[in-house]
Amino acid sequence: MRTNITTFASLVMLTAALASCSKPEQADTQTAIDAESEVAIERPSYAITTDEAFSAADIAPYSGNHQKVYDHIDANLDSHIAELQRWLQQQSGSAENLGVREMAELILDDFEALGFQESELVETDGHPGVWGYYDAGAEKTLMVYMMYDVQPVNPEDWVSPPFAANVIDHPFGEVMMARGAMNQKGPQRAFLNAVQSIIATEGKLPVNLMITAEGEEEIGSPNYPQIIDKYEDRLKTAHAVIFPAPLQSPDGSAQIFLGVKGILYWEAEAQGGDWGGPSKGEIHGSYKAIAGSPVWRLTQGLSSLTSPDGDTVVVPGFYDDVRPPTDEEQRLINGYVSFWNDEAMHQAFNVDKWVDGKTGRDVIMEIIYTPTLNINGIYGGYSGEGVKTILPHKATAKMDSRLPVGVDPDKTFGLIRKHLDDHGFEDIVLRKMAAYPASQTSVESPLVSSVISVFNKYGNIPALIPRIGGSAPFYQFTKRLGLPMVAAGLGYGGGLHAPNEFLLIEPAEGVKAAGLAEIEKAYVDMLYALAESE
Amino acid sequence: MRTNITTFASLVMLTAALASCSKPEQADTQTAIDAESEVAIERPSYAITTDEAFSAADIAPYSGNHQKVYDHIDANLDSHIAELQRWLQQQSGSAENLGVREMAELILDDFEALGFQESELVETDGHPGVWGYYDAGAEKTLMVYMMYDVQPVNPEDWVSPPFAANVIDHPFGEVMMARGAMNQKGPQRAFLNAVQSIIATEGKLPVNLMITAEGEEEIGSPNYPQIIDKYEDRLKTAHAVIFPAPLQSPDGSAQIFLGVKGILYWEAEAQGGDWGGPSKGEIHGSYKAIAGSPVWRLTQGLSSLTSPDGDTVVVPGFYDDVRPPTDEEQRLINGYVSFWNDEAMHQAFNVDKWVDGKTGRDVIMEIIYTPTLNINGIYGGYSGEGVKTILPHKATAKMDSRLPVGVDPDKTFGLIRKHLDDHGFEDIVLRKMAAYPASQTSVESPLVSSVISVFNKYGNIPALIPRIGGSAPFYQFTKRLGLPMVAAGLGYGGGLHAPNEFLLIEPAEGVKAAGLAEIEKAYVDMLYALAESE
Repeated sequence: MRTNITTFASLVMLTAALASCSKPEQADTQTAIDAESEVAIERPSYAITTDEAFSAADIAPYSGNHQKVYDHIDANLDSHIAELQRWLQQQSGSAENLGVREMAELILDDFEALGFQESELVETDGHPGVWGYYDAGAEKTLMVYMMYDVQPVNPEDWVSPPFAANVIDHPFGEVMMARGAMNQKGPQRAFLNAVQSIIATEGKLPVNLMITAEGEEEIGSPNYPQIIDKYEDRLKTAHAVIFPAPLQSPDGSAQIFLGVKGILYWEAEAQGGDWGGPSKGEIHGSYKAIAGSPVWRLTQGLSSLTSPDGDTVVVPGFYDDVRPPTDEEQRLINGYVSFWNDEAMHQAFNVDKWVDGKTGRDVIMEIIYTPTLNINGIYGGYSGEGVKTILPHKATAKMDSRLPVGVDPDKTFGLIRKHLDDHGFEDIVLRKMAAYPASQTSVESPLVSSVISVFNKYGNIPALIPRIGGSAPFYQFTKRLGLPMVAAGLGYGGGLHAPNEFLLIEPAEGVKAAGLAEIEKAYVDMLYALAESE
Repeated sequence: MRTNITTFASLVMLTAALASCSKPEQADTQTAIDAESEVAIERPSYAITTDEAFSAADIAPYSGNHQKVYDHIDANLDSHIAELQRWLQQQSGSAENLGVREMAELILDDFEALGFQESELVETDGHPGVWGYYDAGAEKTLMVYMMYDVQPVNPEDWVSPPFAANVIDHPFGEVMMARGAMNQKGPQRAFLNAVQSIIATEGKLPVNLMITAEGEEEIGSPNYPQIIDKYEDRLKTAHAVIFPAPLQSPDGSAQIFLGVKGILYWEAEAQGGDWGGPSKGEIHGSYKAIAGSPVWRLTQGLSSLTSPDGDTVVVPGFYDDVRPPTDEEQRLINGYVSFWNDEAMHQAFNVDKWVDGKTGRDVIMEIIYTPTLNINGIYGGYSGEGVKTILPHKATAKMDSRLPVGVDPDKTFGLIRKHLDDHGFEDIVLRKMAAYPASQTSVESPLVSSVISVFNKYGNIPALIPRIGGSAPFYQFTKRLGLPMVAAGLGYGGGLHAPNEFLLIEPAEGVKAAGLAEIEKAYVDMLYALAESE
């Protein structure tokens, strides 16, 4: 979790934007010219060589029945709701350092109360982590990634106080409203409620648990690697990693993503210097007649990187390491196409058409495979109302590339640097702010099969996508620890990083997403399904 | 005074940045390619065809002696200081609407007290103007442009309260510190003090006066044309326009500029629309894979306008209407070169070198003649600390061109629009915010000769520059009314638009700039010199 580039939960939101029905078409390509070298640079095209389509419906719904545990959940629902409230009433704002250590200690106490053999506060260079180990004497060990910190709040914007964790009426049913209700304390405590009910009825869990909870996810997880450092050898003996998350839409449907793109995030900055241009402060705009402009330098330097439409990167080598879709990916994409709806996405994004007028499967392919070059922000000089005439001494762009499996972010950074140098923009400074590779879990892993089987039991058949366009540092689980990893869980919430965050507790009539009891029962089943998997 | 693009007083500061000694060289040219049309576009080069050099030293110092008036000024200096304080203690913040009408009424009363035959409050759509007419029964009529409003203040930043107008010690001598002390109430009331002393001693002025004072200069003079409207026919009968201003440096030297460039100021904005790109709000940055980016559109569109170094505009026709230097301009420039000091300017601006490594006269020529294309500010998306990943729906640049005599701002706007259209950037919206032409007064005009003769009497020989790179809507005087116009006056001040604004009242030993008494005596002489001119 090196950076807060995309939080786990916001990735869930990303996938939730995707809905049903459109016709696959053949990918076309877009050609752009690198003006200097006169080499035509094309975005890659992606050949689909199989008609086979993965369908989650082919995986049998989980058939185990743990009625005693389910009954225990139902009988104790009020106290389970109270457990969520206890977690949510404890502030844990990592940016403001509000109640963070208290929250860590609360989790530590909960691990002990649940009967974990090990529970430790893990000091880091920042907020502490919490380690918990539950030894069931089982064959399988599940690692659980948790984050216990929350985003800041502006209480005035909330209809119910953000740390009251009131259960209130909502169009979708009764919801618990609190900062952290959805992201991520609500579903995490629901997971522990499930653990509690299993232990209470069956005496022990069907799998061992290794839990690492961090208190800095919302500020970029700068010290999560220190938590892994301490337990790395043991974590590598686990069989899978899960991140409890409410994946459902109100209609009960859900999308499970098996991977993320990597990211390279950097700032590009032009400033006056020996090339000319004011180096310390703005000068009067009329002196553009005799002075170089850092804003023009940045504008020209950036524009050397792409085609005029901004959609094709003309940096030599930028697309070279994109590998063709694997058979597994092709099957997943062939299966996913039916869940894709261009029109609904156009509306959700206020975008009239996709790049090059692509539709359907071609759009999915771009999201999954094509390395991007995006300007998140550009700024320099005067941005207020009206007229001000200055020649600014500095201009900056915040940029990122999303990179598929096989494309190395540091190599990509080098290509961009070289391209700018080759085009005479040595003066543009690039500051790398984040760089980590893509990661992906196989749909064939027992973890994924188990999760799908439980979704098939409780909800609609889930849609699966091999990789989304967003990024998260899951490589730490998949590459460093070598474990399959998915975010999973029933349930529905909203208000992520916004006012009035909530988690659905008791769905209204007609709402198919799970309430708290069903969320917990599904976690019970996931643990057993994983224990029973090959 | 349509816009606050450059205030009169800040123009004075611009010219004050220019100092002595460098060798003239031959102009060279810079070639850039318009990539689309493969037409080489060059910045214009400027041929100097005469070695003749204008020198203000060739104009005889003003020889008139108005001893009775000078003595009256000296005898009444304390009350003259009190007059400045009375003006400066009256707030007149146009932006905050603080005391503006009270200041207008104070000026109105002063005109009456001075014996003006006409004094009227001129209602406009904004703050009122003040009209004053003094009929001396003289042959010559001088129009005086005044502005009575001031910039906002942050009193905490001042060493003496901004509306106390205290006379305090300063390294350069005794100064009056107040908002408006330099810009522009101080020198204007000093001018009226001179008027008062002439009338008190000689019975009447040597010229008739037409004064138009506006209260909106600091907010862009949106309604000054309404004041001219009312008196246009009469103003056209005047012989010259003066703007009282303290032009000296502490060493007594001064630079007089005879013209300004015109300006075209506009915003260029890219936003999502039918070409693609999000049209209403930002989307997640990872969707650059499938969505167009308004920031890329703006970056690419802007970069189509210039050479890669940002210094040559490749818009066809952009330089076509730049006319060669006239004989008069050449003589002025040949004379001005000795006042130019590249090294001092490099230091003042923190600029290591000028465009194309130009020096000396070539630099002056660029300032005076070359149409510019400057980005005053560019902004879109995230500009905060750290990492945020969005694809913004909008990006904007604030741009301006400074245009020499002969280049029409509206035509220039059309060329830029056409160039963007021709390169496929029809979607980039251009919003024109200001456009007015250059203006220039001949050094041969009796007004300028009279002003120079008075500078030669009191200060160092002034440097003259035919036109500066900055802009002000002086075309209203020179084109609309057809009158010669200069900003003129002895004196030294500082803190324009900043804390601790001051006007030098009594210079310290070794400081050659005029104090208040000498400022007033020079105005006396200017009025007589103009009256006596051909």
